[in-house]
Amino acid sequence: MTPRTSTTLNRLSESATLAMARMARELRAEGHDVIALSLGEPDFDTPEFVKDAAKQAMDDNHTHYPPVSGYGDVLEAISAKFKRDNGLDYKPSQIVVSTGAKQTIANVVMALVSPGEEVLLPAPYWVSYSEIVKMAGGVPVEISTGIESDFKITPAQLEAAIGDNTRMMIFSSPCNPTGSVYSQKEMAALAQVIAKYPEFAVVCDEIYELIRFEGDHVSLAGFPEVYDQVITVNGVSKGFAMTGWRLGYMGAPEWVAKACAKMQGQTTSAPCSISQKAAKAAVEADPSSVEYMKEAFFKRRALMLELLGEIPGLKLNVPEGAFYIFPECSAYFGKSWEGGTIKDSSDLCMYLLQQAHVAVVTGEAFGAPGYFRISYAASEAQLREAASRMKAALGVLA
Amino acid sequence: MTPRTSTTLNRLSESATLAMARMARELRAEGHDVIALSLGEPDFDTPEFVKDAAKQAMDDNHTHYPPVSGYGDVLEAISAKFKRDNGLDYKPSQIVVSTGAKQTIANVVMALVSPGEEVLLPAPYWVSYSEIVKMAGGVPVEISTGIESDFKITPAQLEAAIGDNTRMMIFSSPCNPTGSVYSQKEMAALAQVIAKYPEFAVVCDEIYELIRFEGDHVSLAGFPEVYDQVITVNGVSKGFAMTGWRLGYMGAPEWVAKACAKMQGQTTSAPCSISQKAAKAAVEADPSSVEYMKEAFFKRRALMLELLGEIPGLKLNVPEGAFYIFPECSAYFGKSWEGGTIKDSSDLCMYLLQQAHVAVVTGEAFGAPGYFRISYAASEAQLREAASRMKAALGVLA
Repeated sequence: MTPRTSTTLNRLSESATLAMARMARELRAEGHDVIALSLGEPDFDTPEFVKDAAKQAMDDNHTHYPPVSGYGDVLEAISAKFKRDNGLDYKPSQIVVSTGAKQTIANVVMALVSPGEEVLLPAPYWVSYSEIVKMAGGVPVEISTGIESDFKITPAQLEAAIGDNTRMMIFSSPCNPTGSVYSQKEMAALAQVIAKYPEFAVVCDEIYELIRFEGDHVSLAGFPEVYDQVITVNGVSKGFAMTGWRLGYMGAPEWVAKACAKMQGQTTSAPCSISQKAAKAAVEADPSSVEYMKEAFFKRRALMLELLGEIPGLKLNVPEGAFYIFPECSAYFGKSWEGGTIKDSSDLCMYLLQQAHVAVVTGEAFGAPGYFRISYAASEAQLREAASRMKAALGVLA
Repeated sequence: MTPRTSTTLNRLSESATLAMARMARELRAEGHDVIALSLGEPDFDTPEFVKDAAKQAMDDNHTHYPPVSGYGDVLEAISAKFKRDNGLDYKPSQIVVSTGAKQTIANVVMALVSPGEEVLLPAPYWVSYSEIVKMAGGVPVEISTGIESDFKITPAQLEAAIGDNTRMMIFSSPCNPTGSVYSQKEMAALAQVIAKYPEFAVVCDEIYELIRFEGDHVSLAGFPEVYDQVITVNGVSKGFAMTGWRLGYMGAPEWVAKACAKMQGQTTSAPCSISQKAAKAAVEADPSSVEYMKEAFFKRRALMLELLGEIPGLKLNVPEGAFYIFPECSAYFGKSWEGGTIKDSSDLCMYLLQQAHVAVVTGEAFGAPGYFRISYAASEAQLREAASRMKAALGVLA
């Protein structure tokens, strides 16, 4: 059979973060000491109390098909979490659990966006947003921002971007890849614009909710005038170091939840029953039980900002959440080394991987050429070594 | 926001088996004693040795992102299983693990079928095949069979169905919903036709491999002339009573595996890390370790054939595998009860649910009007009671 993939698949790129992780693994398999700062993954292990709940679930034989939207008690626990942490009223019938927040977003987009409809993506955005939109046949429309505005869109930018064919916007706060966080005042201003377009749906990705260093977390759905337009996405991967368990969830208007369950019922059915019960233990726990991770990230952020600050060609801002730094690096474009010339941030990232054996992800994948993403979810020793290698490698460019 | 779902979602039906399970749950919640013979799920719990492996995986902190296609050691174990049980050579690079065999099939279809291309579905077929094809924008084309041919297609039927726009065929052996199994000779005859059309891909769903009462399991990919056209789908849900874990896998030409990994990387990433390690233990085990389930199903098949044989309007065949019976029931069409007239098998199934409190699934969902599916993955007591209730309820129709 001649290799021939579908026109749908041909529209998609490989996930750039996963591709970089793969290249780092391959280089490591060749014997190189690669420091991977490419994946959006806490370097902590899953807390013991979560594992205990998962073991109990096995002993209780929760190993059969769960309902497509999730076990009733898991949905109840998530409903209570939305109320306790976010002041949001979502009944269990408005909640769907999925195989990671990535599937949650894919479900929403596939279920709500018809081919040809536009989806606004404030850039920089998470790599999979644009690919998921393309998979559904939708048209990603970027709203550009830069380091000078702390990577946040203004209400005027949003309003200018909404057109007759706009179905949805997808954004995250705290933001992957920039770590930027919308304040109460900024979010209120966006809500005011959104409310003027009642047929405009907004996916608010709050997966980094628990990794936030200043101020309170603000949920867009908390503004009553837009509650029925918002799909609130969250999960246990980042806050509870549970990336491998693949468990995301959403709160949304009931008809959206039903539509997403229908989509999910035809693609994967419910997520893993054991993961669901583990996630229940996570969301029922007091968020203070995982604050040690946030404190560690807070220290590493300071360290990383200090170390990267010593590299002259990088422009930095101070991210208020997540575990990423997103430097501007265009000062290096046009510079050369013995192996060639750095044209853009993709070149720069490949150079850092090959020469410094440090894996970071190009800003182009996030809709932000001229930048790259560094994850500081790594040990202090690794961060020091990575920064030192990057400084040396970038210093060679001329 | 006005409820408005995508044109993509609007093409899909809710999974009929999951819908029936939901209706049965709702009726049960109202206090009714419903016997659910609607889901394709072993009533056994996951074996202890699998749970032990999963617990060990947690203790070993396999709780981080696995590679998108699956952990290397898990792929190695599946590769060895393909060789040991099926005589198939699939390298780890030809294998992808997914969130259930349902996602495996969705990945293949999304990755290979372009909108407008035709996918052949020998009917009766598993409910999700047609919906997945429609999700991808493909065109499902049924090849009809009936109880008189043991629900199997002939080589001539296959050849007549292949046209210029045919991309793929999807079928299962042992078959869900009929339990029919293609023999070595029958499969060889199909392979001969398939080999004449080298651009024609065939998904061979072998999820019921371990539940087979007569003869050997035959893999289509075992015929060298079609090896590079076949995608072999399997999983641990049915054979190891692991439906809740959501773990399916495929062996395929390497370019197909790569395409599926790309699709999966943008929708869910890898399946649950714990489930992967649990599945590794399952496929590494000697299949005889789960033979007690098959033996139980074998006894129940005999019981069910005997009990259903006493209901005059049902025509039965003897299924060689899986845990379903698929009776022809058109003798009841046009008959009435105080609440109305039975027009088709959907009416008959709703009647059985409402009046006998027995949940079975209409043949229409499987592309086979005039039939319905009974799962006998239930206790002997439940099966006796269900058959007795069905006999009584059907006897009332006049």
